[in-house]
Amino acid sequence: MARVIMTERAAEWFERLQDTIVAELGRLEPAPFREDVWARPGGGGGRSRVLGGGDVFEKAGVNYSNVHGELRPEMAASLPGDGAQFRACGVSLVLHPRNPRAPTVHANFRRLERGSAAWFGGGTDLTPYYVNQEDAGHFHRTLRAACDRHDGGLYPRFKAWCDDYFHLPHRNEPRGVGGIFFDYLGAGAERVAGRPAATAVTAAETDPERAFAFVQDVAAAFTAAYLPIVERRKDDPWGERERNWQLIRRGRYVEFNLLYDRGTVFGLRTDGRVESILMSLPPEVRWEYGHLPAPGSEEAASLAALCARKDWTGG
Amino acid sequence: MARVIMTERAAEWFERLQDTIVAELGRLEPAPFREDVWARPGGGGGRSRVLGGGDVFEKAGVNYSNVHGELRPEMAASLPGDGAQFRACGVSLVLHPRNPRAPTVHANFRRLERGSAAWFGGGTDLTPYYVNQEDAGHFHRTLRAACDRHDGGLYPRFKAWCDDYFHLPHRNEPRGVGGIFFDYLGAGAERVAGRPAATAVTAAETDPERAFAFVQDVAAAFTAAYLPIVERRKDDPWGERERNWQLIRRGRYVEFNLLYDRGTVFGLRTDGRVESILMSLPPEVRWEYGHLPAPGSEEAASLAALCARKDWTGG
Repeated sequence: MARVIMTERAAEWFERLQDTIVAELGRLEPAPFREDVWARPGGGGGRSRVLGGGDVFEKAGVNYSNVHGELRPEMAASLPGDGAQFRACGVSLVLHPRNPRAPTVHANFRRLERGSAAWFGGGTDLTPYYVNQEDAGHFHRTLRAACDRHDGGLYPRFKAWCDDYFHLPHRNEPRGVGGIFFDYLGAGAERVAGRPAATAVTAAETDPERAFAFVQDVAAAFTAAYLPIVERRKDDPWGERERNWQLIRRGRYVEFNLLYDRGTVFGLRTDGRVESILMSLPPEVRWEYGHLPAPGSEEAASLAALCARKDWTGG
Repeated sequence: MARVIMTERAAEWFERLQDTIVAELGRLEPAPFREDVWARPGGGGGRSRVLGGGDVFEKAGVNYSNVHGELRPEMAASLPGDGAQFRACGVSLVLHPRNPRAPTVHANFRRLERGSAAWFGGGTDLTPYYVNQEDAGHFHRTLRAACDRHDGGLYPRFKAWCDDYFHLPHRNEPRGVGGIFFDYLGAGAERVAGRPAATAVTAAETDPERAFAFVQDVAAAFTAAYLPIVERRKDDPWGERERNWQLIRRGRYVEFNLLYDRGTVFGLRTDGRVESILMSLPPEVRWEYGHLPAPGSEEAASLAALCARKDWTGG
């Protein structure tokens, strides 16, 4: 019973989270979101809100979904819990600003159930084309503050988990300056598959109520972490050079999402709605053979800063 | 000894094949190919020839590689043969014309060894943005003629294998109008993993010498199958509408290569040279949420023709 109530409370909260985020984006972006309400043949459905060709955002998608049904065996084997029945509910968003000086952002907050197990997961990560301490510092400090309200040990571990996850092994490059990434929260005290071995298990992570409170707090902190950055970068001057660099770096975003992203693979393998899953892909992308930024250029400095995998909260 | 000789003969032949194809492309395209000779840290190397921003080809890559070393266990498990030692040698090419009326093409001809097993594989497939019977018919008839010189049963089976392979399950769309696809040729008479159950095993497929002769013939037929199509389409008029459709359909090409293509995955998992592997990705790509061609449009007719999965050799 407590479990059914949590399932419904979480679903309602995630649905409102989508409303809140879209409303806050509306204060920055005059273009309207298109809404698609869809049903999944195997069970459940969702509400996608997407815009293309905005003034500030070249493409933006904020999707709510609440799906359930049966997992294929190979998918089930990769998840905690038992049996083939699953439910997945949450908000997933990707925002691609037009201005190359403004970073792309991804966030996902979700609750999963498989058989008798249920847990929260998600996170948010920032992908600047031009890296700077001011933006990355604001993003990370805002997230750290939200984490610290629950347990001082969460941010460092979830920051490291994010760096580990959003990494392109074939390029040995991080996707961006990271953020936080977490999973299996509220699943109970047993160790679960996928949790890094060195991760301690605190009460804030194992108790379902505390896990839900944590997810609510970091999800609520998302707009405060990201929107001020877009606000201060959206009118920065840029030209063909910055655009080209943005398009090439967006190629890395596509490579990560299609080659490695668990959410994309999970969605496509559970017969999710393709257009909603792939709304994460940038509107325009360029692949240039052997492209390297000129030595000493701002682009080369940006790439080096990305690859340093540093603590951004200082400075 | 016979095996070592075949390894060397095949390598020499593939290296010359790259020369021949690049020379024939040079009759159509004034822009020069850039050549990169590279060594693979684990063993072997290659010679990539790539051009970007040509008059006819927006991007073109014709790569020769001859690599060897040790397979990771999960990679080894997916291949015939025994042990961890492998060698892979061949030519892989992708040509992306600038004109949206000219189709993209991919071809790959290769020889693999794992432990005591050795086999040929490859094929070529055509991806038009605007589908027409004339081009697809010429491509398929040329390939059929090359196949028929070896065994009348090869083309129908390799055509069907190509249709099965170059398919995007998440979209339930073929990548293009297909061509031929084959694998495990010359590996001997035993059945090998990955061969479709209904495929008969003919002498042309099991004998190493006959398999090599077959690969040489279809590889030599490639330019005759493809270049006349580009020649007759490269000056067709096109505008923003055709360009947009081309960029959106190129997105499907990226989705296939990063989500499903075995060659891409093989390359990235055997520490291949990233820029050579990903040269297959189109130079410019667009993802538009929920894009559908207007009912009754030429684009809608093209998509319907693709999805029909028909026999193109007639007409």
